[in-house]
Amino acid sequence: MQIFEACGNTDIEGVDSTNACYGGTAALFNCVNWVESASWDGRYGLVVCTDSAVYAEGPARPTGGAAAIALLIGPDAPITFESKLRGSHMAHAYDFYKPNLASEYPVVDGKLSQTCYLMALDSCYKYFCHKFEKFEGKQFSVNDAEYFVFHSPYNKLVQKSFARLLFNDFVRNASSVDEAAKEKLAPFAALTGDESYQSRDLEKASQQVAKPLYDTKVQPTTLIPKQVGNMYTASIYAAFVSLIHNKHNTLNDKRVILFSYGSGLTATMFSLRLREGQKPFSLSNIASIMNIEKKLKSRHEIQPEKFVETLKLMEHRYGAKDFVTSKDYSLLAPGTYYLTEVDTMYRRFYSKKPKDASCENGTVENGH
Amino acid sequence: MQIFEACGNTDIEGVDSTNACYGGTAALFNCVNWVESASWDGRYGLVVCTDSAVYAEGPARPTGGAAAIALLIGPDAPITFESKLRGSHMAHAYDFYKPNLASEYPVVDGKLSQTCYLMALDSCYKYFCHKFEKFEGKQFSVNDAEYFVFHSPYNKLVQKSFARLLFNDFVRNASSVDEAAKEKLAPFAALTGDESYQSRDLEKASQQVAKPLYDTKVQPTTLIPKQVGNMYTASIYAAFVSLIHNKHNTLNDKRVILFSYGSGLTATMFSLRLREGQKPFSLSNIASIMNIEKKLKSRHEIQPEKFVETLKLMEHRYGAKDFVTSKDYSLLAPGTYYLTEVDTMYRRFYSKKPKDASCENGTVENGH
Repeated sequence: MQIFEACGNTDIEGVDSTNACYGGTAALFNCVNWVESASWDGRYGLVVCTDSAVYAEGPARPTGGAAAIALLIGPDAPITFESKLRGSHMAHAYDFYKPNLASEYPVVDGKLSQTCYLMALDSCYKYFCHKFEKFEGKQFSVNDAEYFVFHSPYNKLVQKSFARLLFNDFVRNASSVDEAAKEKLAPFAALTGDESYQSRDLEKASQQVAKPLYDTKVQPTTLIPKQVGNMYTASIYAAFVSLIHNKHNTLNDKRVILFSYGSGLTATMFSLRLREGQKPFSLSNIASIMNIEKKLKSRHEIQPEKFVETLKLMEHRYGAKDFVTSKDYSLLAPGTYYLTEVDTMYRRFYSKKPKDASCENGTVENGH
Repeated sequence: MQIFEACGNTDIEGVDSTNACYGGTAALFNCVNWVESASWDGRYGLVVCTDSAVYAEGPARPTGGAAAIALLIGPDAPITFESKLRGSHMAHAYDFYKPNLASEYPVVDGKLSQTCYLMALDSCYKYFCHKFEKFEGKQFSVNDAEYFVFHSPYNKLVQKSFARLLFNDFVRNASSVDEAAKEKLAPFAALTGDESYQSRDLEKASQQVAKPLYDTKVQPTTLIPKQVGNMYTASIYAAFVSLIHNKHNTLNDKRVILFSYGSGLTATMFSLRLREGQKPFSLSNIASIMNIEKKLKSRHEIQPEKFVETLKLMEHRYGAKDFVTSKDYSLLAPGTYYLTEVDTMYRRFYSKKPKDASCENGTVENGH
């Protein structure tokens, strides 16, 4: 809040929305609802989706990640909600959780989490299709949206997810399923839900059927998640940003469906309608300012051994007090805030890397 | 979520809003905004304000508490928001925080927290008055509201807070301040903000001036906080509930101003307008169903030694796994859910005390 305080702006609403990878989506909904509510006073809303996730040694470790994406919310936006088209699914599950408060590492059951994700996807899609039919008076199929964006812990799950929507369309006998597809999926028509989540043959057949549509409706959304890896609560917006980057000049009046998932579990499928919009809030200007290509190119590659060494330091410092950090900020982008110290009272202090390397900022005191 | 799942209702939005004692107010605003937004689908919203706060041995220990209050949000309510009349204050402070993840006990700086509370109150009141003037075209003073409800860590701070509003009115030369009051407060007119927070003489003089108005505008809101102690995020709603309990048959068309504070810090002053409403959602029916008198009478008194013993057990179990709880639920109200077990994977299991003691419920499995 110090950034706002420095500008004399303390009349602010909205606090942390916490729910694993879904937290950013919950904050987004809260913020959009605020703008639509009677208490809105005309100012922009700001959503920050941020996460830092690391794993103990083992197969999950490479799926860790840290990221932040900020969204500006206001009227006359080029990206608008089709608010009535929304399906959510909440259930109680221990697929991924952080119960050991002395450790930053979560407990994760990868197989269960994948099934939870697909079950939540099915449930959200069912509610979504139901609402579409109620408001549009016709059945929904994947043909009714130009693009599909998924929370992307890893790309394989995105492929499975889109194929799963096709399978749902097949089961509902929707218009997106042609005769060839029906023939390929027919052997799986009688599977129970549980069987269908476990069937490798269905996975293979549905992905084969979905491939051409995947290439046009999903592939343009996968650039950043594939290049950067899991970004947790920012992940789905990194996928959406990939679409803006790749297709900004052809998105006018297009419908994009997003699926957000957070372990524990909460999930929502929702619909956005895009239009080019007016500068500075035009899609092409947004794409230009994001400058994804440059950001991807400016990444630094480090060796796994260095990553492991960093995690060891983090283990030591997690929840700790009375330490100062190394002052080496050479890898940070200009303007980045970074932790300098945690004092004996656990209070945290930050500094900001100068935008112009010739001028140094003082330490920002965090507290009193 | 298992209660909702059991009814086949999983299409739910809204996740945890986290911000110390302000969390419930943030959830309330989110929920009301949802009902006012385009994505609302006609269902009721539910806000649960809940907290459990304990302190290490020392002077703060008696101010611990645990509570839950639930609010039902929907259209045509007898309690409505005056949404344009709202002032918030967010700032960065280490007045109360929980940095040691291995312990349930917070770090608290009581003196700093009290000053933070009063500073936030001043700032919120300033914004609130400004908005009132903008929308109503006249200056606000405490005379423009029938009742004032404060977040109530302890009653002394509530008394100080209301007196502080009077002092603010005096400084702004508002209509609530008569000549006698002006005379008493005049010696403090030139104090700086910091001096005014520290001045015992001002505290005494302003409370003396405020006393008659306090008795009519605040005292009816203090019953539950005084009887039960700090309820943290539920505290302000416990104060508001005291008002409904005490005054439900005289509240029609009355304005009530609430001040919610959460350490860290976030605070909002907001305005509610009450009307009797239609049964079942009438104020008198709400008062009758809450049955505060019976609830206060049904409390169980335990000795401090027993409380300390319970805290010792909690210290042992905080963040722990692989334990079962005692099955003695004699002190719980019928229908209460309670923890029975935390397994080796840290998964938690609950049971429910039967409503009719002759029938036992099975354990509710929490997860898969």
